[in-house]
Amino acid sequence: MNNVTELVSGRGEWLKTRETDDGIVISSRIRLARNLCGFPFLNRCSESERSEIQSLVMTALNGSELAKDYFYVELENLGPLEKELLVERHLISRQHANTEGPRGVALLADETVSIMVNEEDHLRMQVLGGGFQLDKIWQRLNCLDDQLENRLEFAYHEQFGYLTACPTNVGTGIRVSVMMHLPALKITGEIERVFRAARDMRLAVRGLYGEGTEATGDFYQISNQCTLGKTEEEIVEDFRSTVVPRISDYELRARELLRREKPALVEDKVWRAIGMLKYARTINTQETLTLLSYIRLGLNMGLINDVDIETINDLFLSSQPAHLQIISAKRMDSDLRSKLRAEFIRRRLCDHQNN
Amino acid sequence: MNNVTELVSGRGEWLKTRETDDGIVISSRIRLARNLCGFPFLNRCSESERSEIQSLVMTALNGSELAKDYFYVELENLGPLEKELLVERHLISRQHANTEGPRGVALLADETVSIMVNEEDHLRMQVLGGGFQLDKIWQRLNCLDDQLENRLEFAYHEQFGYLTACPTNVGTGIRVSVMMHLPALKITGEIERVFRAARDMRLAVRGLYGEGTEATGDFYQISNQCTLGKTEEEIVEDFRSTVVPRISDYELRARELLRREKPALVEDKVWRAIGMLKYARTINTQETLTLLSYIRLGLNMGLINDVDIETINDLFLSSQPAHLQIISAKRMDSDLRSKLRAEFIRRRLCDHQNN
Repeated sequence: MNNVTELVSGRGEWLKTRETDDGIVISSRIRLARNLCGFPFLNRCSESERSEIQSLVMTALNGSELAKDYFYVELENLGPLEKELLVERHLISRQHANTEGPRGVALLADETVSIMVNEEDHLRMQVLGGGFQLDKIWQRLNCLDDQLENRLEFAYHEQFGYLTACPTNVGTGIRVSVMMHLPALKITGEIERVFRAARDMRLAVRGLYGEGTEATGDFYQISNQCTLGKTEEEIVEDFRSTVVPRISDYELRARELLRREKPALVEDKVWRAIGMLKYARTINTQETLTLLSYIRLGLNMGLINDVDIETINDLFLSSQPAHLQIISAKRMDSDLRSKLRAEFIRRRLCDHQNN
Repeated sequence: MNNVTELVSGRGEWLKTRETDDGIVISSRIRLARNLCGFPFLNRCSESERSEIQSLVMTALNGSELAKDYFYVELENLGPLEKELLVERHLISRQHANTEGPRGVALLADETVSIMVNEEDHLRMQVLGGGFQLDKIWQRLNCLDDQLENRLEFAYHEQFGYLTACPTNVGTGIRVSVMMHLPALKITGEIERVFRAARDMRLAVRGLYGEGTEATGDFYQISNQCTLGKTEEEIVEDFRSTVVPRISDYELRARELLRREKPALVEDKVWRAIGMLKYARTINTQETLTLLSYIRLGLNMGLINDVDIETINDLFLSSQPAHLQIISAKRMDSDLRSKLRAEFIRRRLCDHQNN
């Protein structure tokens, strides 16, 4: 079994920048919810049934051509920091980290695929990719689904489609979600209007870590709420051609508006963010993400070139609590973390600055 | 007549640091209120009486041995920026700048003495000095008072002493005030307790520009409220030996407390202040003074040595609205001033930094 903590040295797929990016779409993700025939949904599963489900999935994976690329992690064997690390890297949900009982995740080492076992459904398969690349991701996920379906029997109903623990996932079991960076809409105050429009389109808008989390660092996950009545391809296409371009466009217009009407305001926010991160002696995660967000905006708007985007993207990930503690190889309370975080960021920004 | 705007290039007596300073007492000031016999108090003076008073004082000054060192400024001849400059340098009160009618101020070029004519009283003579030096200041002021009294007849009552427009000044007409920098008491939240104690000692606590102004930059003016029943020397001695040492001691203890129990908090505030001032692209006076105050605290506590105290003291003065406009030789609205202020400070801090 691979060591989970080794992931910390990787760049994190969800923040990997592609050359074609405009910096607004951070990453694309699609997941499918599946359940095995012959077992109750998880809220009614006994401990031994959960173990059995986990074994069946592991056997199926090991028997498939995926075996050589994947490593399986049983969450019961992980310490709290390691679980938190997987959450911070968007490889498992917070819920999956925090519940009890036999459960795990199969990971591809490059972090583009994770298959959660015994989360809300028996299986949650996700493919993740930096930037805006829903088609490619959907092809990979569809393929993965086929390979597993060859070895496992999924609960399927002629009329309803795939059956899931929560009725909102019944049918295709698909959730397309795109992580977007929308700082200008936040500054101009238009973000609420965009969200209302999104809800009218039956989309969900969530924070950095999904359901119930805050929109830290101006990162928003936009996802479909509707899994019935449309094919997977239609849902993906809807995101590709309508939802994401439209929200991106709002953000771009907000940036233009700021550039035209309040250039001093944005410039000041961006430069102050750099100043704060280079000088603070103690800083919490929330403030760090907010400041990094302004710097990212400044870079994308071409207002600064003192820092490179890779450094900033990397800091979004590595300044978080579990990352910080694993990188420095010690457990720390939040005060000590804040001090170490400030030091860590300062060192990174001074190493990477151009002038 | 000297040009008022030339004062801008001077260091400003009230912020001049002496070698013996602990950084808590910024400056010492004593003033005497006097009125001429044969004229009503100013609120009842006609315009021509005001002119006459002004002429009498100018003649007295010119006839005295003070003549060669002083220059007299008629405020009616000054533009609003020049008047504001005198306020920012603590050479006249805001009230004196803002009222109408014949009035002026006699100044010593080194800014240690100013004699306001037709402010609240016919004469308000003040001697000002950087640091804690009340004895020396009182000797000079007493001497000045004698010289003027040789040439002018002051309203004096056998029983009450010197008569003044406001009864709170009757008697000695003296106000001793010491400008103190009390950032640690502010951070620890003890400042209110100190102020209550000060009020019990019949002291007034005011902000940076005296009566009715805010305590910007953690600068507080402590002054006597009582001008009757004690001699001038007793009042001065009370400040010298009791009031100021006691408040200084509170501040020093607060600094020790911070150093011992919250070193990270202070260090963080100080470094962030440097970061903000070095990076902000727009900044108002209020925020500037707050940040400069933290840097001053950091220097006095020995937490930093990146900046020299002279630069910081100078910025307290030169970043203010009128100074900024006179230095850059143009009138600006507040938005433009905030941009220019940020640029000005950035340049100064980068010029003077050691590393």
